[in-house]
Amino acid sequence: MAHISIISSGNMGQAIAGLAAKGGNTVELVNSSQADKAVTGDIVVLAVPYPSVAAVVAQRGAQLAGKVVVDITNPLNFETFDSLTVASDGSATTEIAAALPESRVVKAFNTNFAGTLAAGTVGGLPTTVLIAGDDADAKALLAGVVSSAGLRAVDAGGLKRARELEAIGFLQISLAAGEKISWTGGLAVAQ
Amino acid sequence: MAHISIISSGNMGQAIAGLAAKGGNTVELVNSSQADKAVTGDIVVLAVPYPSVAAVVAQRGAQLAGKVVVDITNPLNFETFDSLTVASDGSATTEIAAALPESRVVKAFNTNFAGTLAAGTVGGLPTTVLIAGDDADAKALLAGVVSSAGLRAVDAGGLKRARELEAIGFLQISLAAGEKISWTGGLAVAQ
Repeated sequence: MAHISIISSGNMGQAIAGLAAKGGNTVELVNSSQADKAVTGDIVVLAVPYPSVAAVVAQRGAQLAGKVVVDITNPLNFETFDSLTVASDGSATTEIAAALPESRVVKAFNTNFAGTLAAGTVGGLPTTVLIAGDDADAKALLAGVVSSAGLRAVDAGGLKRARELEAIGFLQISLAAGEKISWTGGLAVAQ
Repeated sequence: MAHISIISSGNMGQAIAGLAAKGGNTVELVNSSQADKAVTGDIVVLAVPYPSVAAVVAQRGAQLAGKVVVDITNPLNFETFDSLTVASDGSATTEIAAALPESRVVKAFNTNFAGTLAAGTVGGLPTTVLIAGDDADAKALLAGVVSSAGLRAVDAGGLKRARELEAIGFLQISLAAGEKISWTGGLAVAQ
C-alpha cells in the first residue's frame, strides 16, 4: 500500500490512477492547472507532457523533496515524429533528476500505452512496466504499486537506462502513429 | 522467394538460416572465416558480432554492391553491459551504410533472440522482426522472407530508427543478462 499523487490532466494520469486504486493504494489526482494544491503522496507521478514538466518542477520542486518522483514522459518532436528532443546521450529523466536533486527520480510507464495499463494486458500477456532509476527502494516501492494491480514490474536498471526506455517509447509511438501497431497494442515483455 | 547468404559462425546466423529455409527461400550459410568464398545472395545477412563487421566489410565490400545487406548487430560494451559502443546520435547500421554506399543496408533481427526466431513465437505471440532502412524495396524483400516463415515483419521506419532498434536490443540483452527475462523470451509486439 502506498499513497500516490498524480499530476495530470490526461489519459495516462487517469490510467495510472486507476491502476493504483485497483491495487488498493490511495490516490490523489491533481490537475496540472492546480498549481497551488500541494501534493501529499509518497510517490508523485508527473503525468504531464514533457514540455510541461519544467513548469511543474519550478512550481513544486520544494514539495517533491524526499519523494519518489516518477517521470513518464516521451520527449518526442511531435511535429516530425523523427527524433527525441533531449540530448542524444541523455534523457528527460536525467534532466528531471538534475533539477530535483532531493527527490528520488525514476522512469516508468513511458513504454506503456494508457489502454494497456487500464486493461492490465497487452497481446494476451500481462502489461509490463519497465522501471529505471538509481534508488533501489524507490523502484521497489513503485514496483509494489504495479504488482498490486496485477501488472508486472521489471527493474530495467539504473537511471542511465531511461535513455533506452525513451528510445523504446519513441519507437512504439512512431509505430502507432504510422499505423503499424494499434494504440491498444505495443511492446509486450515475455519472461 | 529470395536467395540469401548468411555470413556467420553463430546461433543468430543459424536461426536466420532456418527461418529463411522454412519459408522456401534458398540459403547459403558462409562461415565468417571463409573470407575467400564469394557470397551469391540477393540478400546478405552480416550475422557476425559488431566487432567483426569491419573486417567483413573490408573483405567483401565490392561483392556487396547492389545487394540488400542486413545488419543484425547489437554494439554493446559486453564488459560492462552499461553502454553502446557507437556514437550516441548514430548506430552500427549508419556506420555500415556509410562504409557500403553501393549496398542497400537495413537493420533487422537485432531485437529478436535466436530462440524466438527459431520458435516463431515469443510469449504466445508471433515473433516480430522490426526492420529499419531507407530503401523501401529492400525492406519489403526482407519482410517477405520473414513472412514466408510465418513470423511478422514490421517496417520500423528509416535508417535513423536503427538507433532506437539498437537501444531496444541493448535493453533486452541487459534484462536477460540480469535474469529479469529469459533468453527464450524478450520483447513481443502486440498489434
